[in-house]
Amino acid sequence: MAKPKKQPRPKAVTPKGFRDYFGQEVSQRTEMLRTIADVYHRYGFDALESSAVETVEALGKFLPDVDRPNEGVFAWQEFDDGGNGDWMALRYDLTAPLARVYAQHRNDLPTPYRRYAMGPVWRNEKPGPGRYRQFYQCDADTVGTASMAADAEICAMLSDTLETVGIPRGDYLVRVNNRKVLNGVLEAMGLGEDVAARDNVLRTIDKFDKVGEAGVRELLTKGRLDASGAFIDGVGLSDDQAEPVIAFLTSKAADTAGTLANLRAAVGDSKIGVDGIAELEQIGSLLDAGGYGADRIEIDPSVVRGLGYYTGPVYEAELTFEIFDEKGRKRQFGSVSGGGRYDDLVKRFTGQEVPATGVSIGVDRLLAALREKGRIAAQATGPVVVTVMDRDRMADYQAMVAELRNAGIRAEVYLGNPKNFGNQLKYADKRNSPIAVIEGGDEKANGIVQIKDLILGAKIAESATLEEWKERPSQFEVPRGELVAKVREILDSQD
Amino acid sequence: MAKPKKQPRPKAVTPKGFRDYFGQEVSQRTEMLRTIADVYHRYGFDALESSAVETVEALGKFLPDVDRPNEGVFAWQEFDDGGNGDWMALRYDLTAPLARVYAQHRNDLPTPYRRYAMGPVWRNEKPGPGRYRQFYQCDADTVGTASMAADAEICAMLSDTLETVGIPRGDYLVRVNNRKVLNGVLEAMGLGEDVAARDNVLRTIDKFDKVGEAGVRELLTKGRLDASGAFIDGVGLSDDQAEPVIAFLTSKAADTAGTLANLRAAVGDSKIGVDGIAELEQIGSLLDAGGYGADRIEIDPSVVRGLGYYTGPVYEAELTFEIFDEKGRKRQFGSVSGGGRYDDLVKRFTGQEVPATGVSIGVDRLLAALREKGRIAAQATGPVVVTVMDRDRMADYQAMVAELRNAGIRAEVYLGNPKNFGNQLKYADKRNSPIAVIEGGDEKANGIVQIKDLILGAKIAESATLEEWKERPSQFEVPRGELVAKVREILDSQD
Repeated sequence: MAKPKKQPRPKAVTPKGFRDYFGQEVSQRTEMLRTIADVYHRYGFDALESSAVETVEALGKFLPDVDRPNEGVFAWQEFDDGGNGDWMALRYDLTAPLARVYAQHRNDLPTPYRRYAMGPVWRNEKPGPGRYRQFYQCDADTVGTASMAADAEICAMLSDTLETVGIPRGDYLVRVNNRKVLNGVLEAMGLGEDVAARDNVLRTIDKFDKVGEAGVRELLTKGRLDASGAFIDGVGLSDDQAEPVIAFLTSKAADTAGTLANLRAAVGDSKIGVDGIAELEQIGSLLDAGGYGADRIEIDPSVVRGLGYYTGPVYEAELTFEIFDEKGRKRQFGSVSGGGRYDDLVKRFTGQEVPATGVSIGVDRLLAALREKGRIAAQATGPVVVTVMDRDRMADYQAMVAELRNAGIRAEVYLGNPKNFGNQLKYADKRNSPIAVIEGGDEKANGIVQIKDLILGAKIAESATLEEWKERPSQFEVPRGELVAKVREILDSQD
Repeated sequence: MAKPKKQPRPKAVTPKGFRDYFGQEVSQRTEMLRTIADVYHRYGFDALESSAVETVEALGKFLPDVDRPNEGVFAWQEFDDGGNGDWMALRYDLTAPLARVYAQHRNDLPTPYRRYAMGPVWRNEKPGPGRYRQFYQCDADTVGTASMAADAEICAMLSDTLETVGIPRGDYLVRVNNRKVLNGVLEAMGLGEDVAARDNVLRTIDKFDKVGEAGVRELLTKGRLDASGAFIDGVGLSDDQAEPVIAFLTSKAADTAGTLANLRAAVGDSKIGVDGIAELEQIGSLLDAGGYGADRIEIDPSVVRGLGYYTGPVYEAELTFEIFDEKGRKRQFGSVSGGGRYDDLVKRFTGQEVPATGVSIGVDRLLAALREKGRIAAQATGPVVVTVMDRDRMADYQAMVAELRNAGIRAEVYLGNPKNFGNQLKYADKRNSPIAVIEGGDEKANGIVQIKDLILGAKIAESATLEEWKERPSQFEVPRGELVAKVREILDSQD
C-alpha cells in the first residue's frame, strides 16, 4: 500500500449524538446503580453482563437489509476474504440480549431465572437536543414463569428501589394495568378479529394522556379538530362501540375493588378480559399481603404506555411531584420506569414459548429527579489542595497529602508549574476545593502551616462587612502536627 | 423491497470472541471497580466516562484504509446518501479517548487534569482461548504536568490500590524503570541515531524476561540457538557494544543508591541517560517521603515491558506469590498493572505537546489472583428460598419473603410450577441457596414453619454417620413469628 499523504490534524470531537460524562455525573450514576443492584440482589435477582456486541441475527428486530443493514442499530460486517462475514451490531436494549442469553444458556440457568442488567445501549437514530445515541438502561426480568407473583414482585421491588435511592413515599406511584383487559374490551366492542380496526383503536388509546376522555371519544367515532385547527379523521365507530374503551380508560375508582368492578362491566363476558381482571386481582392481593398499599402501588387502567407491546400486566412508575419545565411551567416530573409481561421472548430461538416479565428504570431521569429535589449535590466538592511554595520541597508536600489521604481525606498536591501562586489558587477554585494548605519557607522554619477555608473565604468575599471579615478569619495558622485535625475540623464545619 | 422468505430460527450464540458474565463474576468486578475508584478519588482523581464510540479519525492509531478500515478495531461508516459518512469505531483502549477528551474540553478542565476511567474496550483481533474481543480496562492518568511527582503519586496510588483490594504487602511489588535511561544506554553504545539498530536492540531487550542475561548477550552479538534448536540471528554488535545493555538490565543492587550508581556507569556521559537517572532519583525520594519503601515500590531496571512505547518513567505491578499453572507447574502470578509517561498524547489534535503519565490495572487478572488466594469467594451464596406448598397461599409466602428482605436478608419465593416439591429443592440447589423455608397446610394450621439448613444438610449427607445425623438435625421447626430470627441464626452459623 502506498504511504498515506500527510494528514491534517484530526478533529477532537465525539461523533454526532455521543457525549462524555465527567466527575460526579459518573460517580453519582455509579452510586445509584449500586444502590439499585443491592435492592435487586436482595430480591434474589442475579447480575448478568452480556456482551455489548451481538450478531444482527440474534438481535432479531433489525434483520439484515442488503442495502442498509444498520437501520436503527450500529452494525458492521465481520471481515472475511469472501465478504461473507457475519453482521454484528451494538445492542439496542437489554431485553433482546436476555432472550439470546436465556436461549443459549438455559440448561445451566435456574428456572425461573431472575436477572438484572445495567449498562449502555446504542441506537442509530437521528440525535437531537438531550437525545443521545448511547445511554444507560437498568433492567430486571424474571424469565420462565407465568405466575402473577413474578409481576407483583417486580412492582414491589420497583417501589422499594425508588424509596431506597431517595424518592420518599408519596412522591411516586407505581401503576399497574393489563393488556388482556384491553383485549377483552376490544372483544366486547366486536373487534376481536379485525386487525386494522384494533390497531386504530390502540393508536387512539395511546393519545388518552394528551387528549383526555372527550378527545378519545371523538377520535374513536367521527373525528376531531386538533389544537392547530387541523381535522383528524375518526376511527368511525359508533358511540355504542366506543363506550367500552371509554369505560376501560376511566374505570379507576376509589379502591381496587371498585376499579375491578368497573373493568368487569367494560369487558362484559369476554374470556380474555375476565382473565386479565383476575390477573390484576391476584397482583393486588399479593401486594396487599406484602404490605404495599395504594399509597405505593395501584391498579390504574389509564396506564396505556406499552399496552401495544406487552402481552399481560404492564406497570409504570411515575414521580408525582411538580417541577418547572424549561419554559417555567409547572408540570409533574412523570415516568421514570416501565415494564410488563412479554411471553414470546425466547420462542424465536427455540420454538418454545417462555413467559417472562420485567422492568426498566431510566437511571438518568431518576438522577435528574433527585438533583431537582436537592437530594444529591448538583456540584461536587473537590479535594484539599496542598500548594507548592518551594518546588525543591515537593517531598514535604507529598508527605502532607499522604497523611491526609491516610486519614481518609481526599487530597492532592498541586502538580502544575508552581511559580505563580495565583495560578495555584485559581486551580483550587476550578477544582471546587474546600481547603488550600500553604507551607512556605517561613512556615517550615517555624513548624507551622497555613490552612485556608476556601468555602468560608468565598462566602465572606461575597457578602461580609469589614467587621465580619476581621471577626471570622478564613485562614488559620496551626502547628504542622495538627494539619490533619484542623483540616478535618474545617471540613466538618462546611457540611 | 420484496418480502423476505421465512427465515430459519436464529442461532442463540454470542459473536465469536465475545462472552457473557454471570452473577458474581459481575458483582465481584463491580465491587472491585468501586474499591479502586474510592482510592483514585481520595487521590484527587475525577471520574470520566467517554463515549464507547469514537470517530476513526480521533482514535488515530487505525487510520482509514479504503479496503479494510476496521483493521484492529470494530468500525463502520455512518450512513449518508452519498456514501461519505464518517467512519466510527469502538474504542480499543481508554487512553486514545482521553487524548480526544482533553483536546476537546481542555479549556473547561483543570490543569493538571487527574482522571480515572473504567469500562469495556473492544479489539477486532482473532479470538483465542481466554482471549476476548471485549474486556475491561481501569485507568488513571495525570495530564498536563511533566513533574515526576505525578509519576511518584501514581506508583504510590497503585500500591495503595493493591492493598485496598486485598493483596497484602509482600505479595506484590511496584517496579519502576525509565525509558530515558535506556536511551542513554543506546547513546553510550554509539547507536544514538541508527534507528534500525536501535529497534533491533529494543526488540532484544524485550526478550530479557525469557532468555536472561546470557541469552540477551548472544542475541545482541553473534546469535543464538533457541530451545527448539533453531538458530536466531544476532544483532551483530561487538561484545563491547553489547556491554552497556547488559549493565543496564542487570544494574539492580541491594538498594536504590546502588542501583542508581550502576545505571550511572551504564549510561556514561549521555545527557538523556543522566536526565533519566535524575528522574528515577526524584521518584525514589518522593516515595521515601511518603513512606513507600522498597517492600512496596522499587527502582528496577529489569522492567522492560512498555519501554518501547513510553517516553520517560515506566512502572509495573507484579504479584509475587506463586500459583500453579494449568500444567501444574509453580510460577509467579506476574503482572497485573502497567503504565508510564507518554508526552505526545494530545499533540496530534492541537499541535502542542502535553506531558502525561498514567497506569492501567488489569481488573480481571486481579480478580483471578484474589480467587486464587481465596480472598474472594469462588462461588456465590444464593438467596433463601421460600417454597410453595399450597399455590393458593402465594400471598402468605410473599409475606414471608417481604419480612426477610425487610430484615436485609436475600430471599425469594419459588416462582416455578410448585406441583413437584423435589423440583423446588433442585431449584434451591441450583441457586446455591443456604436455606429453604417450608410451610404446608399442617404447619400453617399449627402456626409454625420448617427451616432447612441446606449447607449443613449437604455436609451431613456427604459424610455424617447415622449418629451424627441424628444429633445434628439440619431441619428446624419454629413458630412462624420466629422465622426471621431463626433464618438469621442459621445464616450466621454458616459463615
